[in-house]
Amino acid sequence: MVDDALAARARSLDEEHHDTDLRGRFRLPAGTTYLDGNSLGALPVGVAEAVADAVTRQWGNDLIASWNTADWWGASARVGDRIGALVGSAPGQVLVADSTSVNLFKVVVAAARMRPGRDILLTDGDSFPTDVHIAEGAARVAGLVVERVSPADAPARIAELGDRMALAAYSSVDYRTGELWDLPAITRAAHDVGALVCWDLCHSAGAMEVGLDGHDADFAVGCGYKYLNGGPGAPAFIHVAAQHISSFDQPLTGWNGHAEPFAMSPDYAPAPTIERARVGTPPVLGVLALEAALKAFDGVGMAGVRRRRSLALTGFFLECVDALVPGIVVASPRDDARRGSQVSLRHPHAYAVVQALIARRVIGDFREPDIIRLGFAPLYLTHADVLRAAEHLREVLGTREFARPEFSVRGAVT
Amino acid sequence: MVDDALAARARSLDEEHHDTDLRGRFRLPAGTTYLDGNSLGALPVGVAEAVADAVTRQWGNDLIASWNTADWWGASARVGDRIGALVGSAPGQVLVADSTSVNLFKVVVAAARMRPGRDILLTDGDSFPTDVHIAEGAARVAGLVVERVSPADAPARIAELGDRMALAAYSSVDYRTGELWDLPAITRAAHDVGALVCWDLCHSAGAMEVGLDGHDADFAVGCGYKYLNGGPGAPAFIHVAAQHISSFDQPLTGWNGHAEPFAMSPDYAPAPTIERARVGTPPVLGVLALEAALKAFDGVGMAGVRRRRSLALTGFFLECVDALVPGIVVASPRDDARRGSQVSLRHPHAYAVVQALIARRVIGDFREPDIIRLGFAPLYLTHADVLRAAEHLREVLGTREFARPEFSVRGAVT
Repeated sequence: MVDDALAARARSLDEEHHDTDLRGRFRLPAGTTYLDGNSLGALPVGVAEAVADAVTRQWGNDLIASWNTADWWGASARVGDRIGALVGSAPGQVLVADSTSVNLFKVVVAAARMRPGRDILLTDGDSFPTDVHIAEGAARVAGLVVERVSPADAPARIAELGDRMALAAYSSVDYRTGELWDLPAITRAAHDVGALVCWDLCHSAGAMEVGLDGHDADFAVGCGYKYLNGGPGAPAFIHVAAQHISSFDQPLTGWNGHAEPFAMSPDYAPAPTIERARVGTPPVLGVLALEAALKAFDGVGMAGVRRRRSLALTGFFLECVDALVPGIVVASPRDDARRGSQVSLRHPHAYAVVQALIARRVIGDFREPDIIRLGFAPLYLTHADVLRAAEHLREVLGTREFARPEFSVRGAVT
Repeated sequence: MVDDALAARARSLDEEHHDTDLRGRFRLPAGTTYLDGNSLGALPVGVAEAVADAVTRQWGNDLIASWNTADWWGASARVGDRIGALVGSAPGQVLVADSTSVNLFKVVVAAARMRPGRDILLTDGDSFPTDVHIAEGAARVAGLVVERVSPADAPARIAELGDRMALAAYSSVDYRTGELWDLPAITRAAHDVGALVCWDLCHSAGAMEVGLDGHDADFAVGCGYKYLNGGPGAPAFIHVAAQHISSFDQPLTGWNGHAEPFAMSPDYAPAPTIERARVGTPPVLGVLALEAALKAFDGVGMAGVRRRRSLALTGFFLECVDALVPGIVVASPRDDARRGSQVSLRHPHAYAVVQALIARRVIGDFREPDIIRLGFAPLYLTHADVLRAAEHLREVLGTREFARPEFSVRGAVT
């Protein structure tokens, strides 16, 4: 009865949001419900072909000439602009380069130089570890002190710290709970005391509107391989607001960031554009794979992606959980305005539960210490997938299937 | 007559060195003599297939599980070891990661921390610009002073500077002239005063024996896309000698370098292995393309690659130049012991000469201010190619073909 009602509801929601169902733009394995697109997005149609062309024709046949003829040289900024359009950053402010970690390092050191005499870097101790680690590593070379404060408490703490504040570096979405933090409020609080902000968009780019320019965000970083579907280890991106580019004095002064890379001058002069955030030769195959992957967003408005997919899918999953596994602890906010594109559940045997779900081809992931993390990539999941996942979860928990010994063997996960 | 003699000599050399002719392991376009493998190596057989498998099966079908099932997680160290074997570094000391520039930054800052109280970073002002730029950028955050000294003068200057010396960072081969610098002497001089050395192997890895361990080199960095043939923007590598790994305190403390990345601890503890040089998520497609490319070296000894290919090819090119274009200035050393795997020529119209050669499908590159740079990638070039290149050069110069207006139009080159 409950199942019939939920099935009818899934059909109705899929019909209602049919216009934004872009599953046909992805190559997903049959029989799999993939709820780990927040770790590694699925393979979009056209990427394999674009990569094959890059390898065989551009590299193999045209060789070195492709730096010009295939515009490998311009790809970092070109693909950056495409990502910029998804996160509300006007052209010329986003560059594809390096990893999220390396990009955050650039921002922290540059921000310290832009705010001399200020000594505090505020960040979230519960953020994804690389954010905290890089904050510490960069603060050490930049002469800053890292203070760890929850995003919820950040605005008040920023006001207290006043002109000691150099940079507030926060994730837009909590990687464990999926909580969507208050980007506008933290940004305003930082600006009110003359500080800068950097947003980690790893768990928001491609899943929701971010509105970097609208909220006057100074900097942002993020990866290309989650909701942007750029493939394993896809290059990351960095946003530097237009008004800061000329003062963005980043420490990784590689030749690709030079104003005239081919003048081969021994003296460094940073490019006047966002390309000053470049360091070494870009990972061309990865950049071109990401570019092809971003075509999955062609003609799609992020407002629709957010409301009709991300919120509809996660909201319906919460409905299903309430109906089918009513006892479980929901770690993610139920309020749409505070929820990213994932739903996390807490369970004392979370690791084994995730393994049991994977055995049933419902792919989610585990996060320490007790989180079942399910990501709802907006472009390629349906409400029917959502219901299927909840039904399997009910069976895994109801039958204690997770208690089978094989589901407790730990391996590396990502 | 001269041509006949050279043709006979080319045939004889190709026969003599036939065992090391690995052209069959590469997919080169017909009709092209490719002398720019020191900018972008040619496409090895098997790379397109390996990349297609990585995209379609590993990513598309197996999705997140491939971090374990395809051992994406171990690829950075696994491929590092393969490169280590080519440059004389025992397993466990080389990691594939980031770009050469980023890796050099890690080394400079770590070296400064390993040599507290010493303030000098010695480097070559005529080195490839990124080496100089990164040296300056890293020295700024590490509290070092960069002094620019030619590698030829480095041993004497190191002795003078004595215990002020923290790090000597040099290229093994000059990117412009192809001069092979004295790695053993500079390394010894640095060690004699208690300093560290870092070698940039961009223009030597894959072309010659380097002998990092044999010469007790502390650090090395290099790119994957020149003589290693890893493809455009292939990930770079970093070597940290075993005895330094536990004290290698590098500034880019990303989560991939953590001892337990999946413990998700907010406190950074570096991996006890070379993996502490990792930063963010590795560029998996690029790493796997490089791994497949390195199979071109399977079963090949670097001593043979050096003597029977690199030195034989460049030496024969010098013979050809002497016979066919006797007036031209040779910028590269004639002494085998002092020559890398390239021959550079100087000409007042070097840019146009290179363009005219390219129009004849002899691909080299131009380097400021007057260098015609011809790289002799050892695995896929023959002595017949060498002669063909010299013959075209004679025609381009003899007929002043280079003076055609279209050959002077500047575009970006790499």
